[in-house]
Amino acid sequence: MAQRIPKTLSWIGELPGTLRMIDQTRLPEEFVEIDCETVEQVWQAIKRLSVRGAPAIGVSAAYGTVIGLQDATNTSRLEFDQKLNEVTDYLASSRPTAVNLFWALERMKNVVSGIPAASPAEVLLRLLEEARAIESEDREMCAAIGRHGAPLMPNQGGVLTHCNAGGLATAGDGTALSVLFAAASVGKKIHVFADETRPLLQGARLTAWECQQRDVPVTVICDSMAALVMREKKVQAVVTGADRIAANGDAANKVGTYSVAVLAKAHGVPFYVAAPSSTFDLSLASGDLIPIEERTRDEISHGFGKQIVPDGVDVWNPAFDVTPAAFIAGIITERGVIAPVSSESVAAMLGT
Amino acid sequence: MAQRIPKTLSWIGELPGTLRMIDQTRLPEEFVEIDCETVEQVWQAIKRLSVRGAPAIGVSAAYGTVIGLQDATNTSRLEFDQKLNEVTDYLASSRPTAVNLFWALERMKNVVSGIPAASPAEVLLRLLEEARAIESEDREMCAAIGRHGAPLMPNQGGVLTHCNAGGLATAGDGTALSVLFAAASVGKKIHVFADETRPLLQGARLTAWECQQRDVPVTVICDSMAALVMREKKVQAVVTGADRIAANGDAANKVGTYSVAVLAKAHGVPFYVAAPSSTFDLSLASGDLIPIEERTRDEISHGFGKQIVPDGVDVWNPAFDVTPAAFIAGIITERGVIAPVSSESVAAMLGT
Repeated sequence: MAQRIPKTLSWIGELPGTLRMIDQTRLPEEFVEIDCETVEQVWQAIKRLSVRGAPAIGVSAAYGTVIGLQDATNTSRLEFDQKLNEVTDYLASSRPTAVNLFWALERMKNVVSGIPAASPAEVLLRLLEEARAIESEDREMCAAIGRHGAPLMPNQGGVLTHCNAGGLATAGDGTALSVLFAAASVGKKIHVFADETRPLLQGARLTAWECQQRDVPVTVICDSMAALVMREKKVQAVVTGADRIAANGDAANKVGTYSVAVLAKAHGVPFYVAAPSSTFDLSLASGDLIPIEERTRDEISHGFGKQIVPDGVDVWNPAFDVTPAAFIAGIITERGVIAPVSSESVAAMLGT
Repeated sequence: MAQRIPKTLSWIGELPGTLRMIDQTRLPEEFVEIDCETVEQVWQAIKRLSVRGAPAIGVSAAYGTVIGLQDATNTSRLEFDQKLNEVTDYLASSRPTAVNLFWALERMKNVVSGIPAASPAEVLLRLLEEARAIESEDREMCAAIGRHGAPLMPNQGGVLTHCNAGGLATAGDGTALSVLFAAASVGKKIHVFADETRPLLQGARLTAWECQQRDVPVTVICDSMAALVMREKKVQAVVTGADRIAANGDAANKVGTYSVAVLAKAHGVPFYVAAPSSTFDLSLASGDLIPIEERTRDEISHGFGKQIVPDGVDVWNPAFDVTPAAFIAGIITERGVIAPVSSESVAAMLGT
């Protein structure tokens, strides 16, 4: 089944190569792929959300680093290393909240600093290997999250998700959606309720598309209908992804996730977060310290081509919100499920 | 201040006259008024939602009756009465589910049957008086709701509202918005947070426009951000309208209202409903008995003029939800505030 699912990201060629990605801003109307040949194209693709989702951003940034350096092999090692810093600083400026972005760039830099005697050409080759390793580890991570999460899903019932923590957000099957796809693949009859996820509608556009690609039944609802879906007992669990998780388990994710978590608690529905261990930022004691990106007015006021807010009226557009650990029944990682969620259980799972 | 606010509906001239209305389908991109000179134009305006909101539809139908008869005064009384039946039957077919439409037309017909000896010209004059009475009673109802609700609003703070229960839905200042405008007019510094209200975006399009017209500060948010607004203590109260209220105080309103009410309770924010006593349906013991209209898929899947849900994917689009009385801190009517909300307190206020 996996073969017929288009890949979110692929490296085309060897060196020099290009990064091919599905342009997620065009789905579901059109299936279009973009070939990034310059680091500016990768930066733009991340910034304008052609590629989105913390793991996919990390993989893109890793390949973006290769792209940014593949014309620099005829320089000195010193110049190459300076260029590396420029390229990674530049890529880091594309999305401030996505911790995987910084994590992937740090990993690329560590490769370079670990081989001080290598030539620029040798370093570049090693960077491509590292980017490929990040990609394949991401794919394995998705599969492991699916295995750990599937037993938590109902055998016959509904599961609500918000935004898109699917294959389009990763190099593999996704995080939250991997749990659902893994449950479906072991024979559980699951019906997905996908919040459309304003303002950028990743749920309606992307989660629905992925479920359809994998023949998992899905119903799209407006975000404001999630409470009613819970009240009518149409769902027995909620699973979302996360963009950054603090040491105490507080989880930042797409705006609206906190709303879903509060509603789930009020209706006695377990709320799970599915995210790789790389999503944890143990330098932050709690979610209050997670910086929240505010995005532009027009995503709300002119979303999808039509003006819907009068000129001159204020709009608030935080891209993320933080769900306190107390609302989270469990965090499903590639290493296992953290439950109940606390600083202690997080530390125990992450081995810190 | 009120003078420069465009009126949702106005009768222009005497007899013959025209019904001028704001074309709400063009807001917020364009402010356009329509002058209806024929009953067909009034019917079309109601049908295509140029005028919407139960009270405003009732007032439009009353004036529409006058317009449909104002060329019929040179006929016999018998012919005039036949024409009345034709005109009211025709207007009744514009929005077959709008209760206020039938109520207003019935009231117009009762005027005619009450003066069997009057000439067509005298009857027409009396019909115009009745339409004006329906309009001014609606305006007074709005003002009374505002007076009763204003003391419940914070002195300096934010208030969240969902959908549009404003002047555009009535001949006056609205219901929920009348409370906010009345609070502002007695000097309270209020900042309105308007849920955009998917799928039809009445909050972003209409509530924001009305607040702007009245110089009441307003910020538009996506529905999924209401929880975050509450968590960050940006609002100290929530006020919405209602479409139908059961005898026990359970209130049906635009879908998403229930979500806001659950979130408000979880954050310790009082949730109020503002609605005239005519909104109560005492034949229904509880909200479980209120029928919920399901609307078409395309309001969600193609709601911004662009396809946002893949073809073939299921969509659920309930137009309303029911908020149980236990979540409602008070129901603000033109007669006073029902609080706490119970079958007994509802019966006491309505005098049943």
